[in-house]
Order: sequence, then structure tokens, then C-alpha cells
Amino acid sequence: MKILIFCAHPDDEVIGMGGTIRKFADAGAQIRLVHFSAGNEGYSSAAEKSEICAIRARETAEVCRILGIAEYVNLQQKDWSIEVDHSTCRTVIAQIREFRPDAVFTHRHADYHDHMNVHQTVTEGWFHAPLACAMEDAPVWRPVPLYEFEVITLFPQPELIVDITAVMAIKLKAMAVYASQTGVVGGAIQMLEGRALLRGQSIGVRHGEALIRSAMRPRAIADIQALVNS
Amino acid sequence: MKILIFCAHPDDEVIGMGGTIRKFADAGAQIRLVHFSAGNEGYSSAAEKSEICAIRARETAEVCRILGIAEYVNLQQKDWSIEVDHSTCRTVIAQIREFRPDAVFTHRHADYHDHMNVHQTVTEGWFHAPLACAMEDAPVWRPVPLYEFEVITLFPQPELIVDITAVMAIKLKAMAVYASQTGVVGGAIQMLEGRALLRGQSIGVRHGEALIRSAMRPRAIADIQALVNS
Amino acid sequence: MKILIFCAHPDDEVIGMGGTIRKFADAGAQIRLVHFSAGNEGYSSAAEKSEICAIRARETAEVCRILGIAEYVNLQQKDWSIEVDHSTCRTVIAQIREFRPDAVFTHRHADYHDHMNVHQTVTEGWFHAPLACAMEDAPVWRPVPLYEFEVITLFPQPELIVDITAVMAIKLKAMAVYASQTGVVGGAIQMLEGRALLRGQSIGVRHGEALIRSAMRPRAIADIQALVNS
Amino acid sequence: MKILIFCAHPDDEVIGMGGTIRKFADAGAQIRLVHFSAGNEGYSSAAEKSEICAIRARETAEVCRILGIAEYVNLQQKDWSIEVDHSTCRTVIAQIREFRPDAVFTHRHADYHDHMNVHQTVTEGWFHAPLACAMEDAPVWRPVPLYEFEVITLFPQPELIVDITAVMAIKLKAMAVYASQTGVVGGAIQMLEGRALLRGQSIGVRHGEALIRSAMRPRAIADIQALVNS
Amino acid sequence: MKILIFCAHPDDEVIGMGGTIRKFADAGAQIRLVHFSAGNEGYSSAAEKSEICAIRARETAEVCRILGIAEYVNLQQKDWSIEVDHSTCRTVIAQIREFRPDAVFTHRHADYHDHMNVHQTVTEGWFHAPLACAMEDAPVWRPVPLYEFEVITLFPQPELIVDITAVMAIKLKAMAVYASQTGVVGGAIQMLEGRALLRGQSIGVRHGEALIRSAMRPRAIADIQALVNS
Amino acid sequence: MKILIFCAHPDDEVIGMGGTIRKFADAGAQIRLVHFSAGNEGYSSAAEKSEICAIRARETAEVCRILGIAEYVNLQQKDWSIEVDHSTCRTVIAQIREFRPDAVFTHRHADYHDHMNVHQTVTEGWFHAPLACAMEDAPVWRPVPLYEFEVITLFPQPELIVDITAVMAIKLKAMAVYASQTGVVGGAIQMLEGRALLRGQSIGVRHGEALIRSAMRPRAIADIQALVNS
Repeated sequence: MKILIFCAHPDDEVIGMGGTIRKFADAGAQIRLVHFSAGNEGYSSAAEKSEICAIRARETAEVCRILGIAEYVNLQQKDWSIEVDHSTCRTVIAQIREFRPDAVFTHRHADYHDHMNVHQTVTEGWFHAPLACAMEDAPVWRPVPLYEFEVITLFPQPELIVDITAVMAIKLKAMAVYASQTGVVGGAIQMLEGRALLRGQSIGVRHGEALIRSAMRPRAIADIQALVNS
Repeated sequence: MKILIFCAHPDDEVIGMGGTIRKFADAGAQIRLVHFSAGNEGYSSAAEKSEICAIRARETAEVCRILGIAEYVNLQQKDWSIEVDHSTCRTVIAQIREFRPDAVFTHRHADYHDHMNVHQTVTEGWFHAPLACAMEDAPVWRPVPLYEFEVITLFPQPELIVDITAVMAIKLKAMAVYASQTGVVGGAIQMLEGRALLRGQSIGVRHGEALIRSAMRPRAIADIQALVNS
Repeated sequence: MKILIFCAHPDDEVIGMGGTIRKFADAGAQIRLVHFSAGNEGYSSAAEKSEICAIRARETAEVCRILGIAEYVNLQQKDWSIEVDHSTCRTVIAQIREFRPDAVFTHRHADYHDHMNVHQTVTEGWFHAPLACAMEDAPVWRPVPLYEFEVITLFPQPELIVDITAVMAIKLKAMAVYASQTGVVGGAIQMLEGRALLRGQSIGVRHGEALIRSAMRPRAIADIQALVNS
Repeated sequence: MKILIFCAHPDDEVIGMGGTIRKFADAGAQIRLVHFSAGNEGYSSAAEKSEICAIRARETAEVCRILGIAEYVNLQQKDWSIEVDHSTCRTVIAQIREFRPDAVFTHRHADYHDHMNVHQTVTEGWFHAPLACAMEDAPVWRPVPLYEFEVITLFPQPELIVDITAVMAIKLKAMAVYASQTGVVGGAIQMLEGRALLRGQSIGVRHGEALIRSAMRPRAIADIQALVNS
Repeated sequence: MKILIFCAHPDDEVIGMGGTIRKFADAGAQIRLVHFSAGNEGYSSAAEKSEICAIRARETAEVCRILGIAEYVNLQQKDWSIEVDHSTCRTVIAQIREFRPDAVFTHRHADYHDHMNVHQTVTEGWFHAPLACAMEDAPVWRPVPLYEFEVITLFPQPELIVDITAVMAIKLKAMAVYASQTGVVGGAIQMLEGRALLRGQSIGVRHGEALIRSAMRPRAIADIQALVNS
Repeated sequence: MKILIFCAHPDDEVIGMGGTIRKFADAGAQIRLVHFSAGNEGYSSAAEKSEICAIRARETAEVCRILGIAEYVNLQQKDWSIEVDHSTCRTVIAQIREFRPDAVFTHRHADYHDHMNVHQTVTEGWFHAPLACAMEDAPVWRPVPLYEFEVITLFPQPELIVDITAVMAIKLKAMAVYASQTGVVGGAIQMLEGRALLRGQSIGVRHGEALIRSAMRPRAIADIQALVNS
């Protein structure tokens, strides 16, 4: 089982699906995390500016260790300038085809600018990865599910809730590692606690994380049993 | 495997999911169909008016035989007067609890008046069937998936497509049995052909039917593997 | 300061704005709560059915005492049959004109059936209360703000967050009084905790409640200073 | 040329399309106006209550004379209780089939409660009038365009603007006849002036009225020239 | 009669409006087709990569011959990098002013990335072409209708359906000429068949194509007769 | 009291909030206006092209004098090429932090391309100005309200209407100063008159301007009295 995660900045993966990542790791999955930006605008004091990317890289390395992420890529784009263009789209296709994941995860559209653009670029790349194009990058990969997680804007009606009760403490521990972001986004731990309680309650467990499955490519139902068991 | 279908009028079940029904029957499912209306406005000539409900009942009986629907209920509501109220909501709850289905199917909201009201009443009843209320009707039933099918308005982005290639001929045969409706809705067979080709193409088969799974009650993911296999 | 709250069922007022109510009470406001339904479907066992309305009435009385609600009205409508019609609209107008509130509170549209209908009826009544109609009911009352709270569906982007940190314990205590509902809606306390943490975090406090101000009647800005101070 | 107009209350037809009506009259059209309600809630003082329907009926008669409306029907429904049901739907079908219009006009969905319900009922009736149903009411009539006008909520992007510059004074004169409503809705003349200027400006004339053509039944283009000339 | 069509890639014009184009040609229209991209990502094997633009150019030339398109322009933008910017906007304005069309056609917004950007650029250019700006490019052209066709995402409620029954075979023949795309998008012919049947059924003919008229610039109705005849 | 206004082109500030600006000036506010573009496409004849930016700059200077705007900045971006990127976002942050406004104003999203992009960039910058980022530009400024005004697309339901009756003549005088735009956008004065009448009527005054307050950052209610008084 191989899992590929695209997000804009270091910490989005913990906020959106830190518990889910750790559950995948516990289930033996091979996990790759791709950050579009090194987080160049995420400093808390002018003094920190020149070091912030290095600081966040160290934090990310520790978070990967905690969550069980074996492979990490940073696309080195700049905050507020993440582009939806040919080159980034090709990069997403290449990542998918080279890693050959069983599922892909990224931002939902309804969020702020950088998250919207990552959403759109990843969706384009994911849609084209199983089509005959961009073929010199790597062999065409099969269609796999694309899931979207919530970071800032709440989903009004999420369709999937992952039970993360057993790994909630680890999610919070990972978030705490991103200490450089505490001064930037206030109350991150509180937000994670509140959201996990709320999402968990909707399925009758203590802590949960919400996902929506992209419907851009519909899912084929060959065996009718799938409608009942899923 | 037990399947419960609610729709407004005789023929909606064929248009929306005739192929899916037959696939369930072929897989050994026990199927119950509930029509809200006997179709009192579906006549093609003034002379036919007094007989139209009886005619459609006979057609429905034959369609049930063709599609493999063993149980049939008609709630005897009137066209253009299907209500979202306490009594109908209780009826839906009672149907679900008494039949104990593994999946429920009904209209999507975005359709015309009667279909919208059936959608809303069934969604309410389905939501409450596993809650502790209306308990004298029958024992509380467990949460099962609710799926929505398309009858008039096309889904802009359906998430599930059932491959009905093998049973498309049976779907068309069932539609032809509803001969009383030919004069009312023109080109029904053509519509079924066109839609099945379109939905099939989107998953790479010849004929398909589109479904959307209701997100009103989110689906719990306990085993993380489910995100990869589904 | 007088506050008028309309909601569908006993407990909606606590879930949606229990902390805000208590803050109003602490600020010396006179508060009236109007329930549309006595909660006839909210029983947890068949045995409880004949008593549920009486049980919930007792619970409501205790909740009113805890939150500081001095006046209580129950419109005795039935669950799943709350109507948007002339008679209920008149009742809302009469309540507003007779009580003469400084602000009105009710459900948001995007929620389930009963909540939607309460939203619509109250919005109609509130809109007409300052117009010259239904005049025999009571003298026309001046336009006052209408606020909407969240009960089931989360607001994707609420515009107002009330800091309820100081009264969060009282909100939870009030919810616990609605013991008859524990078996019906699971995890209510957990939901309240999660939501309050989340809403609080968005304004940098521990606990919050979200409101949206109805824009159906725009707010007049005569003194330009109001745009800066508000 | 025959024109059939359905609206909720006496004065909606002037606000929404008074200029368009008069232009139709000037072009020799035969016009029928159908009000759902006699306007029982539109009084400005308690004393006026028992007479308001009679007063508005006299005003309507005068408005019909001014705008050139030869036929008038009042369905005698109650304000805030206009229903979307079988009987009203049948009435709409009967009106269409008996009058045999070349175009039908009614409210847009996005407006307040009574207007929404008139919109929905008329849309249902208009959709079914050319289908083989409700046949004892009158012979099936051919499909004709359905247009929607704006009364309260502004259309964000109307597609059709009727140039009413030449008849604007008559529209205002007709509005002034509805003197009983002055105390109920403030500034009606000002609203008509402002909206007419705005809608006129968008097509480069002095005064205009906005319409949207219902897309519930698509328009067939047999002669390709129609796409260029229209 | 002059018709100007803007689309993203070679084959979009056939999918979206191949039948409509041929009907225009049969009616004697002068037709110009503008592709934004030469289709550089549309190859089916790595070997084909260096030749794909040339292959698609040859296919396009043949399709133009079949459909009766006399003039062809390719803007040579890259797939996934079609920009909404000043230079492309100027190009669209220049195309419109130089060709002087009676109607313009392009993509609908709700489609994938390249199609969205073409939609937006063409809409901007079309909106500005009759305004006094960019005047050195060519003399200002008069406002003409802008129509949007469907390529991937289905229109939930199209307002115009062109009857293409008589030219359906030609549309399919044109699609077959785009043989290079067969390996990229599976089942294109099936999709065209299904959609044409569905769109045709909605107006009672065998095959149809759906259009929506842009409402960004409203249509002026000076002669009231136009509302009845259209 | 300090007011900061961002808009795309010279004249947007008058159309959207000319009366509100003058009311702020009359109340003693210090006002800064930032235009993204110098208006390079807004000429009415080819001859005017090389001078149009200088002409509009002179008009803007006169408008600033009339409305009481003391500080003016032009970002010198090009029409149809206004970008949402890192550099412009930083510029917005720097403007806010350096000027230290009590309220910020800009375009609503639902408008045409340049306006949408200004909306998005300003919203991003405004959101980040109180966060610890981009710190070398200027010290972090506190969160202040962001308001959106209407220029082309009408707000379906604005929540705030500023009474501009007393300054309407000044708004029109300012618009008249933008004489270079008369040939580009027809009927601007008529549009301003119509819209002001309409917005005024909705709050019972002669002339008004509509605003919507951005909900991207929710407003904290610490003192419950604020809900009643606002």
C-alpha cells in the first residue's frame, strides 16, 4: 500500500490528515509527502526570516519520523506564488507515475489562495496521470482515488470520517513539533482538538478526520456488492 | 443482501436505476420497490383518466417481474401533492425498519417538485431510522448507505457509475413495458440509451447508470485500508 | 435589553447558543425562548413515548433556570410537520410584537427539515413584524437584528463568534440536563466541546459560538463611524 | 399575441413588468393577469383590515385599465399560505390551456416565501401544460416561453432587458394607483425608478425591466439562423 | 453570416459543437476556428511526442474541410499553461474585430483548467471588443451573442438545443479524423453518441447539441414581439 | 480614523463607494486610495492611447480633491494582467502595515477578471497583515474590518447600506470628472443614479451604497451588548 500526499506548506499534512497518515504507517503503507513550498513566509520575527526554511525543514524531518513518512519532497515554490501551470502539472504527474501510489491526498478547493492552487494543480496532474500524455516523465499509472482534506475552511458536509482516536496523541505531538508556526497561526493545537472531537462525534468515536473523495473521475462499480459493503 | 428503493412514480425506478436493480437481482438480492404515487396524472387521453392507475399498476407488476423485484408497495399519494410531513416520514422509517435493507435508493434533490419532495422525505426517514425515535413502528435499524439516482436533471459530476452493459437490454425492455407513459414523456427509450452511453463512457464501458452517495450521515473509516480498496 | 429565541426542539437553543444566552442573562437581558415542537419524536424507548413531551418540558424548565431564560413558550407543533404557513407566520409576528425584542435568534437555512422550516417561518415573521400588516395581533415593532446559529450543519464561514469561555461550563451543564436526548443523539457533549474549541480558536479564545446575521433586511449605516468601530 | 401573467399579490405585476405589460398592450396583445392572493395582509392600519381585499381589487381594476390588461383572475389564496399542491398546479394548467398564451410570465425563485411558491407552482403547471395530463381541464396547449421577472431580490445577471423608456411614466402611474400599499412597502416609486435606470443603463437606454427565460424546458434551434438573429 | 469559434484544443470544437458548425456551413456561413493550443500533450506514445502537434494540425485541416470551416488560427499556447492575461485578451479582441463575426462560441466555465481559462479570456475579450479600448488592433466591433458549448462537464440545465440530426453522421466522421486522440480520451465516439441522443431527446429530435448564451452582457428587447417569437 | 481603499482602475472607487469616501472625509478620516492599474486600456480613440494614463492620473487627482482623499498610490499594473502573486500580496501587506488603517475596502469577488484578482490579492494581504509574516516590510498591524463594494455585478443581498443622500451630488460630480471614461462605459451617471436610489430605498433613504463585510476572518464578540447595538 503506497500513499502520496501533496500539500502547500509544512504543517498542512498534520492539520489535515496527521492521524490518517499515522494509521497508514501503522498499516504498513509506504508514504511520500510532497510540499509545494518550503514555507518562506512562515516566520514569527524578522530575525527568523533568513532561517525559516531551514527551521521548517528540520521540523518536517521530525514530523515525518513521528508519522511514519519515509519519503519527502519539497518543490521549493514560494508562498503566495504557487502556480497552476504546465511545469508544476508535469511535476505532479511525474511524482504520481514514479511513486505509483494506491491513493493520493491533497487540499480541498474551498480554502485560501495557495491551497486552492495546490488543489487545482494536483487535481489536474492526478486526472492526467493515467492518460497517455507527458509520457517521457514515467510510464502511465493506473487511476487511483484522490481524497481532499480540510485545513482552514470546514467542510459543510464531509462524506468520510477516519477514526483517529487511537493516534490522536501522535497527531498532536506532530503538530507540536512545528513550533515555528505557533507564533504565526494561533491556537493550532486547540483547533486540532476541536475539529477532531467534532469529526469523531459525527461517527460516534472520540476523534476523527474528515475527507472528501474527488468526483472528477467517477468510480466504476462493476460488482454490485460494492454498493452494499462500502 | 436487501435493497430498498423509494421513488415518486411508476417508471422512475427504471429510468434512474433499472440496470442496477437487475444487477442486484442477479446477485441474489431481495428487492423492495416503494412508489409514492400511483401515477394518477400520467394518462395520455381523457378517456384513459379513470383507468390510468390500474394500467400503471399492471405495468409495474410486469416491470417487477422483469427486473427481479419481489416486493412492491404503493403509498397512494397524488401527483403534485406528495408531502414532506410527519406521516410520510413515519412511513419511510417504518419501511426501512421493517424491511431492514442493506442499502436505500431514492431521487436526487435537483429535480422537479414531486421528486424533490420524495428526496427530502426519504432522506429524513433514512436519517432517523437508526435513531431512537418512532419506536413503535419497528425496532431501530442500523445505518446503511443512501444512494441517489438521476431521472430528469443530469448530475454534473456523479461519483459512482454502475456498469450495466450486461443488463442494458433488460432495462430497455422494462422501460418499454411502461407503454402508458410513451405519450406523456416523449423519447424515453432514446433518453435511456443516450444517458447509458454517456455514463458508461465515463468509466470505459458501454452502458452505465450514475449514483451519488448521500453525505448527510458521513461514512466511518475504521480500517484505513478501506480508503485504498474502495 | 430583550432577547427572543425561536428554535425547533428542546435542546437546539443550548447546542446553538447556550453560552450566548447565558451571557445575555448575565448582562441583565430579559430572555424569551420559543420552541416550535414539544419534541414528540425524541424518545429513546417505546415505553418512554407517551411521556417524552412531559419529560422534555421538565428538562426545558430546568435549562431555562440554568441559562437565565425567564419566559418560555411552546407552539406545540409536531416533529417532521413544522409548517411554513399563514398561522405560524402570524404567531411569529405576534411573538415579536408582543415581546418587543432588541434581537431575534433562530436556525440557519442549511440544516435538516424541521430546522429549515423554522428558519423560513421565523425569517418571514421577522421581516413582516415592522411592516404594516397583521396589525390586530399587536402594534408594529421596529426592525431589530436577526441572527442565525448552527445546530447540525457547520457554517463554512461564520462572520461572528461570541466568546463563551467564561460560561462554557454552564452550557455543558445545561446540555446535560437534556438527559432524555442522550440516547437519541449520541455524543452531544463531545460535539459541543469540539465546536466551542474550534469557534473559539478562530478568534483566539478558548470557547466560542458562531452566528451569522441575516442580510434579508440590510442594515443602515447613517454614521460612518459605525463601519470602523463595529 | 396572447400574454399570461401569474403573480402572488396585487402590485407584483407592476413592480416586475409594468412597462413590459404596457408594451405588449400597445403591440395589440391580449393580456390576462392572475393573482394568487387578494392581498389580505396588505393593510396599513387595523381599521383597514376588513376592507383591504376590496380596496386592492379596485386598485387592480384601475391598474388593468392603465396597463391594458383585458382579463383578470384572482385565485383567492391567503398571504403566507400560497401552496404548491395538486389543486393549484391544476389551476395553472387550466389557465394556460384555456387562455392559450404565446408567453407566460411569473416570479423568479430567489425571492420571499409567497413568491417562491408561486414560482414553483407556475413552473410546474407551465411544464405540464403541453404534456398529456390533466386532460379534462382543457386541450393540451403547445410549449411557449416562460419568463421570470424581479420583484424583491435583484437578478445578479439578467439575460434580457426590455426597453421601457417610452412607457416608464405609465408604469409609475400604475404603481401610484396601488396607494394602499404605500404604507406597507416604503419607497416603492423610488425603487421602481432606481431599478429602471439601472436596467436601462445596461443596454444603453433610459429605463428597462429585467427578465430571465426559464431553462427548465430547453429551446429547440432547428434553423441555425436563430442563433445569430436573436 | 460569420461565425467565430474559440476553443482550447483540436477536437473540442467537434465534441462541443461539430454538428452546429456544419449546420452553419450548410447555411452559407463563413466560419473561423481559433485553437489556443496546438495540443502538445495529446500524444499516445513517447515516440509520438515530437510529432504530435504536426499530426493534430493535419487532422484539424481535414476536420475543417469536413465541417466547412474556411479559416483556421492556432495561438500556439501550451497545454496546462493557457493564460488569462493582457496579451491573450488582446488577441481575442483582435480576432473578433478583424473577423467581424455575427456570433462567438467558446467553452463553459465549469470544465477543467485549460477550458476554464479559455472561457475566461474569450469572455473578457468578447466583452471588451465593442468597447472603446485596444483600438489600434482593429475598429471596434458591435456586440454579438456569445454562446458556450459543453465538452467535459454536462450542463445541468442547458437553455438551447440545436437539432443536429441531419448532420450527426458528419460530426462523428469529423471526430474519427482526430484519430491521434483515441488513445488519450477513451470512448470519444460513444460519448458523442450518448450526449447527442440525450440532448436531442430533450427537444424531441434524434440528435442535439446544447448551448448556453452568456448573460454577461444582457440582450436588449426593443420590439416586444421578440419575447414571443424567440 | 484611517481608511484604506484598493481598487483596480481609476473610477472604481467612485462607482463603488464615492459617497462613503466623502462621508469618511467629512468625519475627519485620513484616506488613502490605491489603484492597481493606471488604466492603460481605457482610451476612447486611438489618438488618445499614448496619453490615457496621464489623463486618468489628472482626473484621479481632481477626484481625490473632491472626495477628500489625501494620499494616492498607483501600483502601475496593466489592465487584464493584474496578478495574484507573491509580489503584489507583499505590496498589499506593506500598504496596510505602513498606513495602519481602521478599515480596508476593495472589490467583491463576483465581478470581472481584473476586479476578481484585486479582490483576491487584497483579501490575501489583508488576512496576512496581522500575522507574523513578511515582517521586514513593516510592523504587523492589528486586524481591522475588510469591506467589499459593488462596481459591475449587483450584490443579490447586501448586508450594509451607507446613507449617502447628503453627498450624492458630490459623488456624481466626482464621476463627471472621469470624463475620459464616458466613451468607454456608457451611461455611468445613470447607473450611479439608479443604483443609489435602489440601495437607498432598501433602508428608507434617498441614496445609498451597498457594502458586504468579509467573513474570511470572523469578528469576535466579547461584549454581548454588541449584538444588540450594531
